[in-house]
Amino acid sequence: MDRFPGGVPWKNYSGELDGLNVHIVVPGKDKALGVDSVGTVPSFLLTYATGVALQPNLIINAGTAGGFQAKGANIGDVYVATEFANRDRRIPIPVFDKYGIGTIEAIPTGNLIKDLDLKEGKVSTGNSLDMTLQDEEHIKANDATVKDMEGAGVAYAANLLAIPMISLKAITDIVDGTKPTVEEFLENMSTAASALSRTVPPVLKYVSGKNVADLVCS
Amino acid sequence: MDRFPGGVPWKNYSGELDGLNVHIVVPGKDKALGVDSVGTVPSFLLTYATGVALQPNLIINAGTAGGFQAKGANIGDVYVATEFANRDRRIPIPVFDKYGIGTIEAIPTGNLIKDLDLKEGKVSTGNSLDMTLQDEEHIKANDATVKDMEGAGVAYAANLLAIPMISLKAITDIVDGTKPTVEEFLENMSTAASALSRTVPPVLKYVSGKNVADLVCS
Repeated sequence: MDRFPGGVPWKNYSGELDGLNVHIVVPGKDKALGVDSVGTVPSFLLTYATGVALQPNLIINAGTAGGFQAKGANIGDVYVATEFANRDRRIPIPVFDKYGIGTIEAIPTGNLIKDLDLKEGKVSTGNSLDMTLQDEEHIKANDATVKDMEGAGVAYAANLLAIPMISLKAITDIVDGTKPTVEEFLENMSTAASALSRTVPPVLKYVSGKNVADLVCS
Repeated sequence: MDRFPGGVPWKNYSGELDGLNVHIVVPGKDKALGVDSVGTVPSFLLTYATGVALQPNLIINAGTAGGFQAKGANIGDVYVATEFANRDRRIPIPVFDKYGIGTIEAIPTGNLIKDLDLKEGKVSTGNSLDMTLQDEEHIKANDATVKDMEGAGVAYAANLLAIPMISLKAITDIVDGTKPTVEEFLENMSTAASALSRTVPPVLKYVSGKNVADLVCS
C-alpha cells in the first residue's frame, strides 16, 4: 500500500473474498523495540490513515481484550462492541471530563449479532494492560463488559471520517477472575486468535451485499 | 489546507515570517462536545497528517504543561523538551513495558536553549490532567520536570515521519505545589499563553536559515 508514507511499520494484506475487496491492516512492530504496536495511538492513526487511503465502506476492528465474568464473559468469547469509552483520560473540568471519556456509540448491529450468535457488550479502552482503582471506577461507570487497549481509538478515527465500524473482541483474560492478567493474557492469546479467525470470515460474508441499515435488529 | 480530509476539526493558518513558510495547525474543537481536542490521540494524528500533507522541515510543538517546582519550574516558564516518555501506558510484559513508556529523545538544541535563555527538561505525557500514584511513579522514573498531555504523541508522529521536532512547554501549574491542579491550570492559562507568544517568534527567527546540526550545543 504505497499510499502510506515510508517509514511507518504498518502492514497491509489485500485480497478478495466472495466478491468483497478485503484489506487487512495491522499496526506492525514498533520500529525501535520490535514489539506489536498496541494501544490507542497507533490503532487510531492506522485507522485514520487507512480510512483516508482506502476509503472503505466498512471498518472491522478485530482484536483481543479482557472480559468481566460478572457480565458473562468467558475466555474465547467474541464480543461485538455496542459502545466505546476511554478509562484513562481523566480531565476534571466541566465538558472536558466528558471529552476525556469520549463515549462513542457503535453502529447498531442487532441482526448480525443474532444471526451469527455473537455476544454484545460495551468496551472500555485504555493504554495499560493492568487496571488501577481509577480505571476500575471508569469501567464501572461505563458499564463495560470488555476491557481493551484500542477500541475507542479506532472508533474515534472511524467517527471522524464517518466510516461505519464494527468491533470484534475475543476474550483472552478474565479481569475479575483469580489469575494474574499478564499470565492469563499470554496463555490464551492463541485461543482468542482462533476464535477471531473463526468469526471474522462469517462476519465478512454476512455484511457482503448489505447496507449498514440491514445490520440493525428489525 | 484541503489536503486534510473533510470532517476533521483541525485548523490551519499559513503565512510567512522572515522568509520562513509558517503553518500553524491546531487540533480544533471536539466535534461532539465543542472543547479543545487535548490529549495524545488528536495531537498525534494532527502531527502525522500535517507532516504528510505539508512535509515541513521542522515541527514546533508549542503548548502548556504542569511543572515540578522541586525541579526548578515556575508558572510562565517556557521549557524546551529534552526527552519524552508516557506515564499512563503500563504494560507489564518484557519489552512491551519499554514500548509503553516509549521514551523518545528530543533533537539536541543546546545552542537554541543557551542563546534564547530558555529552560530545558524532560517531559512526561499522559491523557489525564490529574496524577495517580502510578502516574507519579512513572514521572519520577522518567526524571521529568514537565507534565503534559501531548508531547510524547507529537514526538512519536514526528519520529515515525523522521521530521525534526522542537517542543516548547509553558508552565500553567505547579504539580508539586499546594494549589489544586485544575484551579491553578485555569488561572494561569493566559500567563502561559503570553509566555508562549513571546517565545515562539524568536525561536522561529532563530531556526530560520539554520540546519538541525546548528542547534546542537557546540
